[in-house]
Amino acid sequence: MFYAVVMAGGSGTRFWPASRAAFPKQLISLTGRTSLLQATVQRLEGVLPSENVYIVTSESHSQALRGQVPQIPEENILVEPVGRNTAPCVGLAALHIRRREPEAAMICLPADHVVKDVAAWKELLRAAHQQVRARGRVVTFGIPPTRPETGFGYIRFGPQIATEGTLPVHSVEAFTEKPNLETAKAFLQAGNCYWNSGLVAWRADTCLDLTRRHLPTIMDGLEDIDRALGTPRYAQSLAQVYPRLPGISLDYGILEKTEGIAGIPASMGWSDVGSWSALPEVLPADDTGNVAVGTHVGIDTRDCVTYAPGRMLATIGVSDLIVVATGDAVLVCHKDRAQDVKRLVERLDKEGQGGYL
Amino acid sequence: MFYAVVMAGGSGTRFWPASRAAFPKQLISLTGRTSLLQATVQRLEGVLPSENVYIVTSESHSQALRGQVPQIPEENILVEPVGRNTAPCVGLAALHIRRREPEAAMICLPADHVVKDVAAWKELLRAAHQQVRARGRVVTFGIPPTRPETGFGYIRFGPQIATEGTLPVHSVEAFTEKPNLETAKAFLQAGNCYWNSGLVAWRADTCLDLTRRHLPTIMDGLEDIDRALGTPRYAQSLAQVYPRLPGISLDYGILEKTEGIAGIPASMGWSDVGSWSALPEVLPADDTGNVAVGTHVGIDTRDCVTYAPGRMLATIGVSDLIVVATGDAVLVCHKDRAQDVKRLVERLDKEGQGGYL
Repeated sequence: MFYAVVMAGGSGTRFWPASRAAFPKQLISLTGRTSLLQATVQRLEGVLPSENVYIVTSESHSQALRGQVPQIPEENILVEPVGRNTAPCVGLAALHIRRREPEAAMICLPADHVVKDVAAWKELLRAAHQQVRARGRVVTFGIPPTRPETGFGYIRFGPQIATEGTLPVHSVEAFTEKPNLETAKAFLQAGNCYWNSGLVAWRADTCLDLTRRHLPTIMDGLEDIDRALGTPRYAQSLAQVYPRLPGISLDYGILEKTEGIAGIPASMGWSDVGSWSALPEVLPADDTGNVAVGTHVGIDTRDCVTYAPGRMLATIGVSDLIVVATGDAVLVCHKDRAQDVKRLVERLDKEGQGGYL
Repeated sequence: MFYAVVMAGGSGTRFWPASRAAFPKQLISLTGRTSLLQATVQRLEGVLPSENVYIVTSESHSQALRGQVPQIPEENILVEPVGRNTAPCVGLAALHIRRREPEAAMICLPADHVVKDVAAWKELLRAAHQQVRARGRVVTFGIPPTRPETGFGYIRFGPQIATEGTLPVHSVEAFTEKPNLETAKAFLQAGNCYWNSGLVAWRADTCLDLTRRHLPTIMDGLEDIDRALGTPRYAQSLAQVYPRLPGISLDYGILEKTEGIAGIPASMGWSDVGSWSALPEVLPADDTGNVAVGTHVGIDTRDCVTYAPGRMLATIGVSDLIVVATGDAVLVCHKDRAQDVKRLVERLDKEGQGGYL
C-alpha cells in the first residue's frame, strides 16, 4: 500500500497577520477556498485512501487541524511535543507506517504548498509509488525552474534511468543549497537543474535505515519511541525522547548524503507560496494586475495583492502593495519587502505585542 | 444670555470607512479621544451653560449623538426631518432660542471642526458675544490663511471698527467663493483675506430678520413651524414644512447679501479636517512624519496617516499613504488622492456594497 506523510508542524511568520502562532499558514485559506492543508490532503484522493494519510503537527495547531480534516483517522494525527525539523518528523511517521505494513511505500510532503495541475500531480505520485514499490527507490521531484530563484535548494539530475508511465526517471547527481544569483542563473541555463520541492517518496523502512546510517542519534531516539509504540507508554516515551532529538532537515541530514536517489521532473504548477508576494503565482490577476482574496474595490490601483476575506478592502492611487486585513490587525507592505514580514513579527514580539502573533 | 447652535446634521463620505451613513464624521473620534462633536461642545464650557447649547442633527444620527452628549437637555436636540443646508438649520434653532429669550445672542458653529487653542477660542467667543449683545452686530471669524487653499471660501476684511478685549474687530468688505489657485495666492499675499470658518455670532432675531429679508420662502416655512412651537402640533408641522424648504447655505443665502457684518481675525489652531490627508494638521507626527490614531508599527515607513483604533496596523516600505481600518472595511489611499474617497463611496453604493456605507 501507499501512504502519505503530511508535514504540518510549521509555524512560519511570513503570512502575518493572516497566519498566527496558533493558526499557521497551512491552516489558512490563502487562496480563499480550502486551507493549504485541506487542499494537500484532497490532492491525495484517488491515489491512496484517507486512512493511509498521516499528518505530523504540533500541539498548538493540532486542535484546529483536526477540525479541518475530519476524514483522517484520529490515530493518524501525530503530534510532535516540539518541532525538530523534518528528519525526526518523517522518521516518527515512518515508525507508525512500518509498524502497520513493514514494506509500505510513503510520500512525504509539506502541508503548505500549492499544486495547480492536480492530474499531473497524481500521475507523478503513481509513477513514484511504482518506482518505490517495484524498485525500492528513493524518489524526489524536481520542479523545472522558471526564474533564477535564490530562495530554493536545487537538485541536479543526471541521465534518464527509467520510464514510468509517460514520465522519465533520472538519477540524481547532487542536491545543492540555496545558490547566489549568478549560480541560480547558471542553473536556469543548465537545463538539468530543478527546484527541490521538498517531496520524497520511499519505503518507510528505507527511510529508517537511512536515518540509522546518517543520523544515528535521531534513530536511537526513534527506536526508543518505537519500542513504546502501541503500548500505554507511547505518549510518555514521545514526550521524553522527542525533545532531545537534534533538529535536522531531511535534505541536509539524509538525502544529500544518500547515493542512488532517483528524480522525476515535476511539471505540476507547483509553488511553495513562500510569502505574500507569491500569491500571484497561484491566483489569477485581474486586468490591472491585482490579485485579491476577498472583496477588493480599487480606483487607479495596479499590481497589488490584497487579502481580506469577509471584509471590504478599498484602494485608491496605489500600486505594488500587499494589503492584508484580519479582525484585529492590518498589514500594508511594499511587494518588494514581503520577506520583511518575518522581521516585523519579530519586532512585534519584542515590543510586547505578542497578542497579535 | 449666550446660546450655541451646533450644526451636526452632516453625513459626509470623505472619512470612510471610519465614518458611516449612520455614524458621520462629527461622531467619530478622529483624534483618538473624544468625538469632534464632543470636543465642539466641550469647547463651549465656561462660556455658556450646557442648557444653552442646541444641536441640530438628522434622524439617522440622533440616537448615537444623544449618547455622546448626555449633558445637553433632550429638548435642545433638534432633529431635521431631512437635511436642508445651513440656512434652514440655523433658522430652526433660532426659532427655539428666540422663543426662550427674545434678545438672545447665539454662536452658530459646525460640529466637525477642530480648534487646538481652546483658550484663544473662548476669548474670541466672549468678544463676539459682547459685540452681538452690546452692538447687535453680526460677527464672523476669519482664519488667517497659511497656504493658498482653494478648498475654502474667503472673507475680505476692511478697516478696524472696534476693539473687544484684546481683539480687533473689522468691517467685512466681501465674502468670496472658493478661489482658483492664482486668486488664492493673491489672497494669501493680500493680508486682509481670511478663510471663512463657517462660524457666525448674532442675535437669534437678527438671524430670522435677515432670513425674512433674503430668504422669504424659507422664513414663511419657519413661521409655520414657529406657530406650532410649544404645542402638540410641533412635530407634525416640522415634518410637513421642513422638507419643502429649499436647501440654501447661510453664507450664500444670507451673509453674502448682508451689509455691515463684522469680522474678528481668529488665530485658534482651526482646521475643518476636510479629509484624511488633513489629519497631520491636528495631530502630531512622529520623527518619520507618520501620524497615527491607534497602534502603528512601521518599518521604513514615512509620512503616512494611519487610523486603526483598537487594531494593530503594521506597514513596511511605504510612504505617503493613508491607511484606515475598521471592523469590516479597510482603505489604503495615496495621500494626494484623499478627495477621491468620496468617489469611492459613490462607487461602493452603485456596486451594491451599501452595507459598507
